[in-house]
Amino acid sequence: MKEFALKAALDEVRQSVPLVHCITNYVTVNDCANALLACGGSPIMSDEPLDVEDITSICGGLVLNIGTLNANTIQGMRLAAAKATQLGHPIVLDPVGAGASALRTETASELLDAYGISVIRGNMSEVRALAGASSTTRGVDVDPGDVVTEDNLAESAAFARDVAKRAHAVVAITGAIDIVATETDAFAVRNGSALMGKITGAGCMLSAVCGAYAVAGQDALLEATLAAVCGMGVAGEMAAARMTPACGNGSFRTYLLDALFNMDGNALEKHAKVEQL
Amino acid sequence: MKEFALKAALDEVRQSVPLVHCITNYVTVNDCANALLACGGSPIMSDEPLDVEDITSICGGLVLNIGTLNANTIQGMRLAAAKATQLGHPIVLDPVGAGASALRTETASELLDAYGISVIRGNMSEVRALAGASSTTRGVDVDPGDVVTEDNLAESAAFARDVAKRAHAVVAITGAIDIVATETDAFAVRNGSALMGKITGAGCMLSAVCGAYAVAGQDALLEATLAAVCGMGVAGEMAAARMTPACGNGSFRTYLLDALFNMDGNALEKHAKVEQL
Amino acid sequence: MKEFALKAALDEVRQSVPLVHCITNYVTVNDCANALLACGGSPIMSDEPLDVEDITSICGGLVLNIGTLNANTIQGMRLAAAKATQLGHPIVLDPVGAGASALRTETASELLDAYGISVIRGNMSEVRALAGASSTTRGVDVDPGDVVTEDNLAESAAFARDVAKRAHAVVAITGAIDIVATETDAFAVRNGSALMGKITGAGCMLSAVCGAYAVAGQDALLEATLAAVCGMGVAGEMAAARMTPACGNGSFRTYLLDALFNMDGNALEKHAKVEQL
Repeated sequence: MKEFALKAALDEVRQSVPLVHCITNYVTVNDCANALLACGGSPIMSDEPLDVEDITSICGGLVLNIGTLNANTIQGMRLAAAKATQLGHPIVLDPVGAGASALRTETASELLDAYGISVIRGNMSEVRALAGASSTTRGVDVDPGDVVTEDNLAESAAFARDVAKRAHAVVAITGAIDIVATETDAFAVRNGSALMGKITGAGCMLSAVCGAYAVAGQDALLEATLAAVCGMGVAGEMAAARMTPACGNGSFRTYLLDALFNMDGNALEKHAKVEQL
Repeated sequence: MKEFALKAALDEVRQSVPLVHCITNYVTVNDCANALLACGGSPIMSDEPLDVEDITSICGGLVLNIGTLNANTIQGMRLAAAKATQLGHPIVLDPVGAGASALRTETASELLDAYGISVIRGNMSEVRALAGASSTTRGVDVDPGDVVTEDNLAESAAFARDVAKRAHAVVAITGAIDIVATETDAFAVRNGSALMGKITGAGCMLSAVCGAYAVAGQDALLEATLAAVCGMGVAGEMAAARMTPACGNGSFRTYLLDALFNMDGNALEKHAKVEQL
Repeated sequence: MKEFALKAALDEVRQSVPLVHCITNYVTVNDCANALLACGGSPIMSDEPLDVEDITSICGGLVLNIGTLNANTIQGMRLAAAKATQLGHPIVLDPVGAGASALRTETASELLDAYGISVIRGNMSEVRALAGASSTTRGVDVDPGDVVTEDNLAESAAFARDVAKRAHAVVAITGAIDIVATETDAFAVRNGSALMGKITGAGCMLSAVCGAYAVAGQDALLEATLAAVCGMGVAGEMAAARMTPACGNGSFRTYLLDALFNMDGNALEKHAKVEQL
């Protein structure tokens, strides 16, 4: 996959150690911090409105994850996003549970419309809700009717490109098949493991990692996001390969971080399954 | 233990994949989410008053855990509990640290009195505080004077039945010996491992799992709660059996999730040690 | 290292099981709770102003960690610190990210000035910011210009003693070389592993553990803090020794807790590398 420069994107993260400000949910925040460290970045978490502008200013990028948002953290997201936009920092938006509540849908939409979001990372139900497309929802999981399959791949890619066009952002819709798209290009990524859906936080971790890749690869956001998505998928496969009969989602969570930590650019390029659509 | 239908309760959870809304403390929230996934359910966490009614509406049940409560999350608990009560969803109450502070005791009591609580899950000190029985307390651990032993088992069971009667709920008091009771029946469960007290969150995880079992087994709440309690105890034994000399509470936490993940109904019925009192 | 009574300090923690109230960030709070359990203490987390005075009153000591602070938790810290000061409980202050934002620097300074802080535990950048020394900062990591080295060890020790004098506290500045100091004495600790910087929370866990050691060793705070710092360093070495090629920061985190859990006083004294400066 030399043409997508996956190895270069990974190496750039490890060499530059991007400092990433995360305003993220308290369910998976520890996993997000460890995932950022594993991939070669450095995390700092802060959500208090009085704190976020200073913190974002010393970082290279911002990740906004709306799981467990509250009135105070929403205000923190606004101030941090305004400051990051002003500073030209890439912002990753993870619309966790958009479609599951009015507050989540509206907050995600407001953040997308009002600030300079660079990357959107969610499952298909969340991205559909964010885009104003009608969607049922099953909490923080994708609705069965929204799953990307080989049969609806072209249609799903067209949708992703359309969202990317309207949002002026790279769109990463992840699931059994991932789609990464800009206005003009779309790619399918067929890496990963079903076990990633059996731990909490695989999506949140990916969004955090996308933040590090976006900082390091700000001039090539599509390639950077593709590298992050492929990297998480390959890490999922490596983690799954270590599972023994006694292992469950506790071990898988540990192994997933281990695999992110040990991933190198050559392994990433060797195992990535990327198809231009 | 065929008569308690433990296997049927477990299978029902795995087949129906209950979506459970948790308002829970930020110390063990990640463990609660992973425990719900491990047992076959699906978690969604939300505590903001503006968000909780929507979230509870798309779920099958609600878990209220008062560890690290604050003024905002207490209001979230009230609104979620009112909505869940109105919708007929089972609600699990975990009175973490009741007795350790006035705020915790009062909040737990208010939730119990004002809403349709289906299951109470706590240690003996917490349940005593919730019931208005005088109790000393040692933070979030059971007070030595409150421990259920073979000597006070009949008395403890009578207490549990009385709480169940007054609360119109199933009561699960867990410790070295667990008691699960309704107004008319009480059972002792003698599964588990002392290592469960050496990690944070074993009780919180059980309360979350009780939520999934209550949704799936809404018409047989006693059996469902017994299955959840036995399942956590058997998982603790399986996790303890994997410990090597280098292992400590870090590994035990991982192994406990693994055991929940791999538990099947036959193993549960084989290893459960349930006695009707 | 008999003269520092490391074994005695560890044994005292395991025998007295100190109950420690933590107001700490939500990123690493689970690790802090498990680290307290691993070292022999018992954690209770509470940050709501309406709750903290009751909780602190039943505990033996208080740990204030300003990572992810917000307006509500700052008020909780004030009330808890006032109560703990009044009760004569030792208070550990971890100024996470002091220097990275005005709110963090000011909050840490206010807490230090207004209440009876017994132990300060941070990296050199944070302690410099807390002390009003000019310092650049790199988020929650030490700034490269602030790293303690063999070359600046005497100067660093003098700074630590000066901070200790002005704060009337034991100061633990941790990094590749740790410094533990009072007004009159300073020690270098050369334990640990570089992998401790590749997980989130090694510093937070140490601060929590310092809380347990401070409660158990209230009459010999320097020795207690030295034992906690050495213990974490030796645990890091033991965890590193278990790493295999497939292991990354996921496994290291687990192994670090395991090592804290299994640490005994003899191993601690055998492996501790303490030098009086």
